[in-house]
Amino acid sequence: MSDEKSKFLLSENDLPKQWYNIRADMPVADTPVLNPQTKEPITAEFLNVLFPMSLIEQEMSKERYIDIPEEVREIYKLWRPTPLKRARRLEKALGTPAHIYYKDEGASISGSHKGNTAVAQAFYNKIDGTKSLTTETGAGQWGSALAVACNFFDMDLEVFMVKSSYHHKPYRRIIIESFNAAIYPSPSDQSEYGKQYLKEHPDSPGSLGIAISEAVETAVKSNGKKKYSLGSVLNHVLLHQSVIGQECLKQMEMADEYPDVVIGCVGGGSNFGGVAFPFLHQNLTEGHTTRLVAVEPTATPTLTKGLYAFDYGDTAKMAPILKMFTLGHDFIPAPIHAGGLRYHGMAPQICMLYEAGYIEAVAVPQPATFAAAMQFAQAEGIIPAPESAHAIRAAIDEALDAKEKGEARVILFNLSGHGLLDLAAYDSYLRGEVGDSTFEITKDEIRKNLPKVDVM
Amino acid sequence: MSDEKSKFLLSENDLPKQWYNIRADMPVADTPVLNPQTKEPITAEFLNVLFPMSLIEQEMSKERYIDIPEEVREIYKLWRPTPLKRARRLEKALGTPAHIYYKDEGASISGSHKGNTAVAQAFYNKIDGTKSLTTETGAGQWGSALAVACNFFDMDLEVFMVKSSYHHKPYRRIIIESFNAAIYPSPSDQSEYGKQYLKEHPDSPGSLGIAISEAVETAVKSNGKKKYSLGSVLNHVLLHQSVIGQECLKQMEMADEYPDVVIGCVGGGSNFGGVAFPFLHQNLTEGHTTRLVAVEPTATPTLTKGLYAFDYGDTAKMAPILKMFTLGHDFIPAPIHAGGLRYHGMAPQICMLYEAGYIEAVAVPQPATFAAAMQFAQAEGIIPAPESAHAIRAAIDEALDAKEKGEARVILFNLSGHGLLDLAAYDSYLRGEVGDSTFEITKDEIRKNLPKVDVM
Repeated sequence: MSDEKSKFLLSENDLPKQWYNIRADMPVADTPVLNPQTKEPITAEFLNVLFPMSLIEQEMSKERYIDIPEEVREIYKLWRPTPLKRARRLEKALGTPAHIYYKDEGASISGSHKGNTAVAQAFYNKIDGTKSLTTETGAGQWGSALAVACNFFDMDLEVFMVKSSYHHKPYRRIIIESFNAAIYPSPSDQSEYGKQYLKEHPDSPGSLGIAISEAVETAVKSNGKKKYSLGSVLNHVLLHQSVIGQECLKQMEMADEYPDVVIGCVGGGSNFGGVAFPFLHQNLTEGHTTRLVAVEPTATPTLTKGLYAFDYGDTAKMAPILKMFTLGHDFIPAPIHAGGLRYHGMAPQICMLYEAGYIEAVAVPQPATFAAAMQFAQAEGIIPAPESAHAIRAAIDEALDAKEKGEARVILFNLSGHGLLDLAAYDSYLRGEVGDSTFEITKDEIRKNLPKVDVM
Repeated sequence: MSDEKSKFLLSENDLPKQWYNIRADMPVADTPVLNPQTKEPITAEFLNVLFPMSLIEQEMSKERYIDIPEEVREIYKLWRPTPLKRARRLEKALGTPAHIYYKDEGASISGSHKGNTAVAQAFYNKIDGTKSLTTETGAGQWGSALAVACNFFDMDLEVFMVKSSYHHKPYRRIIIESFNAAIYPSPSDQSEYGKQYLKEHPDSPGSLGIAISEAVETAVKSNGKKKYSLGSVLNHVLLHQSVIGQECLKQMEMADEYPDVVIGCVGGGSNFGGVAFPFLHQNLTEGHTTRLVAVEPTATPTLTKGLYAFDYGDTAKMAPILKMFTLGHDFIPAPIHAGGLRYHGMAPQICMLYEAGYIEAVAVPQPATFAAAMQFAQAEGIIPAPESAHAIRAAIDEALDAKEKGEARVILFNLSGHGLLDLAAYDSYLRGEVGDSTFEITKDEIRKNLPKVDVM
């Protein structure tokens, strides 16, 4: 009977009480974060211009488990724990012996995993006295999640949305406005950097790097009135996302299986870190050998084609310098539909682990991700976000590989969000208008524009 | 501890095994369904041009419980049982002593309750040999649900979508196309009736009545190759929706409460019937006195301003004649955003019960529904469908009334769908462009165009 189940639901009481911090278990040495002006290791004081002290402490912390405040858990309960589902109809359509599970983070109030950190960041800002936040958003998932969270905690929010997404994804703009946040297409005339960039590149589709610069500048120039909030890349963000993988561990136990491979798409790395790190902890401490696969677009092949080096987090060189795989802070990715994956860098923790061989990476071209998305939708009835379609592509490829090899592989992927606000992209795909945007660059070309730093 | 819960989840095993048929318990005498040509009581033979025999049997049945086929339950399990949630944050925002519960039918693969009958209808058509279906859709919730269902059972589908919605809700069109259905804005040039109507009213925004005519004509003229599928009004549709109320009964028990009032919006009546009839059964058999409140738009005030009389189900007089509250089969409602509530008639079972005093009805103006939707969204994080916003308006009004009277009222409403595909409507609202469209008509005016029938 339990073998026929296809949904694994946890009760509110099973909601994790603590976040899991990968920094407690990093099997490789830490890399420092640098001040973008001095290029020296960053101080809490510098970071405090952007972030409240409580989040800076989490960023630096090496505690393995950090308590989730009751106020945050109360809001998590509006949609968490999210379901784990077995994609039985997809398995049948593929004719694979593999078992395919997916964590449905789209079943949340903002439609993606982003709420997990949005609520936490809004909460810590609130208790540290922040009245107003600034942020950037790519596809709009992060911006809408933070708008919902700021609304709950009665805080103001300004969102800089990458211009190509702002115009192609009006529905996310409307959500952001519905929750009382201000929103500007980036590059915008709201910041000095934006004005200057617009003068030089009036037709720019924008990028996450530029939008980050605008949001950071707005916070920096506010004389302490505004703080900045980042939806990915940083350790405290990945920390908050650990609820995903922790719930999956319990749910895979309910399914009486354990994954051979865990898959997530990567832009800045937060949903992948969220689902994968609790399994990495099991690999490191319990002797499991689960493969952890990060999936990126060939249009933004940060891990697979980037250089592992110190680089600025944003285009205007105002954000901290991080050691990460990078395509260069001035890289402007093609305006692919998976706007949330259009970032030149990657979370340092993920980069360290990739460099050291603890996780794998694969890049997939855009048309193949839409084909996978349609196959998943027609089997399971859920239209995925174009970002999540990258994870689905890799999961289907794993399932087909298992079929070829006759292996009973157990596959788990994170469905980071639904695609109901991305239907214009599917319209383009159905009309045959979604093309490949594979990006090629040499490591020498990337190296040219990197900041010169002394630390290794 | 249980008092702090705000989500009540059932397992797959709690999914109802039978549908509840209100016709077994109707406390008032049946009204006949008439053939639109002869005006005599309809025969199964006539209906069989449109529907498969298995659904006609369900339409006529007076069995209290009808088994849900295992094939249908398997697909229901992709999203059912849906959560029951307590809107604690909304209660707090209203400062009401009332407890507000809502059934989240938006948490489904097509985003509304419509999948409950779409899957059942596709299944019964499939086993009776139907290869292809036709249907109409207002806001597109029904069309997208049936597109998903037909895709699962590998059947063709043609959807006639009310023109005003087709253009204002492109995302639902894209969903319907993503699941391989054909879709036409109605009035269209795909049917004789559509062509003729277009000639006389080239700028018509369309109506459900016209779209039904086009879908019915397409099935009738197919020489048995196509059947027709209706998303509301008929008894077999309300039957399939009874899973909603049956789950609510179990979930209210988990919450250790029982509703004083159950609320649903009404267009054709299916989501209201689905949530309310199992509670009516309790009223009739267990001595409960739960109030059942149907909420309609003042732009389409079928129950509150209509005439209880025999009228055609569609504009072209091709569909059966039903005794129902009607605004006249030639009524063209204003193009309000709640496209799913733009119907001139109402399910006969609901009309009989309303006429006999077993259920209540209230009409609410459009701007008040959007105000309620925003208040709900900002408290609970979910943007509701404009149709469901009518139920929310009534639920909030009940909660405020309970506050005024100092009563601990228990309120349950059906959130029939999410509004993520209706965000253009919220954009209009935020820009102050949503107006009132209250419709006034006298009963004498309605009476003028009704068919002349002999039966009472």
